[in-house]
Amino acid sequence: MTKVKATNITWHESHVERIEREKLLGQKGCTIWFTGLPSSGKSTTAFTLEHELVKQGYLAYVLDGDNVRHGLNKNLGFSAEDREENIRRIGEVAKLFADAGLITMTSFISPYRKDRDQARKIHEEADLDFVEIYVETPVGVCEARDPKGLYAKARKGELKGFTGVDDPYEPPLQPEFVVRTEHRLPEDIVADLFEFLERKGLLLKRL
Amino acid sequence: MTKVKATNITWHESHVERIEREKLLGQKGCTIWFTGLPSSGKSTTAFTLEHELVKQGYLAYVLDGDNVRHGLNKNLGFSAEDREENIRRIGEVAKLFADAGLITMTSFISPYRKDRDQARKIHEEADLDFVEIYVETPVGVCEARDPKGLYAKARKGELKGFTGVDDPYEPPLQPEFVVRTEHRLPEDIVADLFEFLERKGLLLKRL
Repeated sequence: MTKVKATNITWHESHVERIEREKLLGQKGCTIWFTGLPSSGKSTTAFTLEHELVKQGYLAYVLDGDNVRHGLNKNLGFSAEDREENIRRIGEVAKLFADAGLITMTSFISPYRKDRDQARKIHEEADLDFVEIYVETPVGVCEARDPKGLYAKARKGELKGFTGVDDPYEPPLQPEFVVRTEHRLPEDIVADLFEFLERKGLLLKRL
Repeated sequence: MTKVKATNITWHESHVERIEREKLLGQKGCTIWFTGLPSSGKSTTAFTLEHELVKQGYLAYVLDGDNVRHGLNKNLGFSAEDREENIRRIGEVAKLFADAGLITMTSFISPYRKDRDQARKIHEEADLDFVEIYVETPVGVCEARDPKGLYAKARKGELKGFTGVDDPYEPPLQPEFVVRTEHRLPEDIVADLFEFLERKGLLLKRL
């Protein structure tokens, strides 16, 4: 264990600049917002990209139902108001993560255009990249997958307000990227996403 | 620009393990929770430590009023209920940051023991280090500083429920670390904090 020789330190009255953390990490902080129907493959795509980014030395983190719904948003239900607040908080937390320099991914159905646009707005106002990725899996394919049997329950009327069955999904009008999980291999999708992130200038180490 | 050669990628159905990000960063994700009276020096201490950590290659980020009150918590006021929810959300977001591998600092008065204990609890349940730092500046010193004139306003009754004047501050009973900003030089405080973080095993690069 070494003893720190910290000299000439003076009080700082403000945050470290974002660029300093980005230099340290070799990447640009950003938010990659996955949106799509239930069982469309959002989380699988986000997790697979997260694994590959970390393997290649980039700091990435996925915000999803697992780590958000049971913690930060555990006091929210499924009313229209609570759904909006759910996505609002996720947008704000993603913005904090992006500001900290992380390649931040969010994996939520986020069915309404206006809520996604609001998340984009707060990022753009803070000069942070926001990449909307539409996981465009047809509802029939999602329903055939249905790993948790939720579509089946919704069809029987046991689940109300289920996106894709009795609640609308508003697809992005101009997503930065479209993923089609049913026709492409994971390695091809991830390779495409890497190329896209490089082209956007977000992966500084690789330039 | 290089083309990624991503082969043998299979779908991942879960998050990257915390340890993978910690290896990448050379540090353990944790939350350093600063608490103390208004104008006690919490943010100055946190910012100074943040600057020094980043300078030495560690990824650190301060959550404070600047980036939280105007974003994530902008829909909260100052009622007892909203104050509790304010600290609850900050605790949950800090936990997400710590899980992502960051040395996360929070700089909020956080006057109530039970709210801080709740933040500690959710970290400990997730096997994340939580370090409570009490910035123990006497109220007379804080009030003499009063850079925003808030103590003066509170004394005149123009601000209600101001911690240290007409709202209680409950000091930590067993803080992991105590900072006394009025008697020590910044470089000494930061050196002490570094040594403490090293001893806790949070700064892996330096071991």
